[in-house]
Amino acid sequence: MPAPTQCGTSVSGEARPGLRTKRSMRIEGRNYRTIWLDDDGRSVRVIDQTKLPHRFETQILRSSDDAARAISDMVVRGAPLIGVAGAYGLALAMAEDSTDAGLDAAYDKLLETRPTASNLRWALDRLRDCLRATPRQRRRERAYAEAGAIAEEDTGFCEAIGRHGADIIKAAAERHPDRAVNILTHCNAGWLATVDWGTALAPIYKAAREGVALHVWVDETRPRNQGASLTAFELLGEGVAHTVIADNAGGHLMQHGLVDLCIVGADRVTRTGDVCNKIGTYLKALAARENGVPFYAAMPSSTIDWRMRDGVKEIPIEQRDAREVTHISGLTEDGSVATVQLAPAGSAARNYAFDVTPARFVTALITECGICPATEQGLRGQFPGRPADGR
Amino acid sequence: MPAPTQCGTSVSGEARPGLRTKRSMRIEGRNYRTIWLDDDGRSVRVIDQTKLPHRFETQILRSSDDAARAISDMVVRGAPLIGVAGAYGLALAMAEDSTDAGLDAAYDKLLETRPTASNLRWALDRLRDCLRATPRQRRRERAYAEAGAIAEEDTGFCEAIGRHGADIIKAAAERHPDRAVNILTHCNAGWLATVDWGTALAPIYKAAREGVALHVWVDETRPRNQGASLTAFELLGEGVAHTVIADNAGGHLMQHGLVDLCIVGADRVTRTGDVCNKIGTYLKALAARENGVPFYAAMPSSTIDWRMRDGVKEIPIEQRDAREVTHISGLTEDGSVATVQLAPAGSAARNYAFDVTPARFVTALITECGICPATEQGLRGQFPGRPADGR
Repeated sequence: MPAPTQCGTSVSGEARPGLRTKRSMRIEGRNYRTIWLDDDGRSVRVIDQTKLPHRFETQILRSSDDAARAISDMVVRGAPLIGVAGAYGLALAMAEDSTDAGLDAAYDKLLETRPTASNLRWALDRLRDCLRATPRQRRRERAYAEAGAIAEEDTGFCEAIGRHGADIIKAAAERHPDRAVNILTHCNAGWLATVDWGTALAPIYKAAREGVALHVWVDETRPRNQGASLTAFELLGEGVAHTVIADNAGGHLMQHGLVDLCIVGADRVTRTGDVCNKIGTYLKALAARENGVPFYAAMPSSTIDWRMRDGVKEIPIEQRDAREVTHISGLTEDGSVATVQLAPAGSAARNYAFDVTPARFVTALITECGICPATEQGLRGQFPGRPADGR
Repeated sequence: MPAPTQCGTSVSGEARPGLRTKRSMRIEGRNYRTIWLDDDGRSVRVIDQTKLPHRFETQILRSSDDAARAISDMVVRGAPLIGVAGAYGLALAMAEDSTDAGLDAAYDKLLETRPTASNLRWALDRLRDCLRATPRQRRRERAYAEAGAIAEEDTGFCEAIGRHGADIIKAAAERHPDRAVNILTHCNAGWLATVDWGTALAPIYKAAREGVALHVWVDETRPRNQGASLTAFELLGEGVAHTVIADNAGGHLMQHGLVDLCIVGADRVTRTGDVCNKIGTYLKALAARENGVPFYAAMPSSTIDWRMRDGVKEIPIEQRDAREVTHISGLTEDGSVATVQLAPAGSAARNYAFDVTPARFVTALITECGICPATEQGLRGQFPGRPADGR
């Protein structure tokens, strides 16, 4: 298991994120998390994010295959949530086959579902290390407990990110007491991308709940439109003022002083501070730099890949189905959900899911331990226990 | 009327772009232009670009109101084509009411259809100046002749842009004899944006017809998706290899050496070389600069606004209906065209249609007169007859 972080954020041990657990975020006035243990104490319940914002449905994951499919089909997505879902996937696998061979096979199956998010490997490594040191007959119970601990830890980390990041927003609000602070975000790094609170959106929720006047520019985030579908849905639920824009618009907004700061999430961060995040993040970071707009990335420490130095060269970039570019789903006038084809049938398409923003374009990183420069020195200052070569 | 350009490109005088006129560009093997005089010698026929790529339909414009509506609803779009459609709109107006009052009213009505493209005012000014100097009873005939002349001129200009720009592509091909030249383009600045040939795509068509191996990365260009719908449709018709990508992907591609050069069109260019083009162009120019990728903008001289010096401060940026962001149309599985809603109903959206790329990010401009630096000196070198304050 990795060394605990040095900043004193508590790890909740054996707690499980069940329905009785504290849930912070609202959909139409009800509080939710993205993932929880079902009433049978074995199956895992998740919000089906492929149906949002038009339908609110949950899915039950009854097997490790279900968990793997839910991750690869993006029923659950967002680096921290992928990590937690992967951990629960291993717990489900232990209920199926708790041998070393069963553990290794499930580890491999879950790891290959999504290649880019660092948190998946982090969570799977943590569970595998812990389960290898556990007698076979106790592995199932131990796996559920550890998956639950990771979920609780993620919640605590995200809430801490929210507190630290809110300070940045409050400082911007003090500079502009006459109007709302304008924040641009890309993709969805909200509570739907984590267990609760979110990463990039946690500071926004914390600041909004403290009464800071703010407004969020929501990049729709093609091709899967997680901005328009998930971030807008979240912000509606929390009652935060926001405006959906095409991904193309951010440069124009920054050029005209309409953005005070950008906050994005991350799927993997190198130890040098390079930020891999949803495709298009890099373009916004370039515009932010050019126009003097601070650009922050927020992530729990589980997103940091200490083994990697050069994000552009080293981080594997997932390529997804071209159909996500050529087709799109939405709500028809009669209230059904339909998929329509956008490009001509004869045209090829490519679907790179992530890009890397070199650290020099990132004003600072926001982690559960605070705000630090996007540099190796900055990260090591927050996490001094990490060895030079990674875990 | 503006002074003729100094580079010797011929102006075809009284010619009309009728069905018998040379048509260069192919749809499924048949040659087309975007706009032509209908058989009655009065109505104007246009390709309905709102229906592409799923339906090929034409529309008849029988009145100046029809022309105004076709421009504002983007049945015809693209700065050069908007100019020609505006000119034909004034011709239709002269067939309705050829008094000075009729002329002025139609001028105002047509000018306000789209605020950003320079070519609309240019064409309307040219026609109004010419018609004011024409006796009332000859205005109708004169207007059609002049609109036809503008259309022919645009065709000649675009073909010349194609020849000049093809040299850039051929030079890139010589540097990479082992593989196709990769060109990224944004929005549609092809023949559908002009009368024939196109601006940004004309060099691609010329080079491809000369046998240069090339491949085009097509930004889908949200919110109206003119890349995925119009550019991909054009390239299919011409048999040019291409791949549709989300607008978010260009930075990643450039970072990884997958783009040799960018070519975009323009809706307005200041005399200092600032390029106003479809929203998102600026972000691609920033990525091109950061990654050492040459970034070209191609436009006829009618796109240059000699009155303007600072594009970011002075060029009016059209804001269109938010519904273009929150909804999208496409082909359903049963072959019908349907509109689906993407964002939650409660979320606001904003739709800025253009942005401005400051001249310092533009490697060079490609006009009918050749290739010149994106500077006032560069433009004046190509168009020495222009007075300092514009027309």
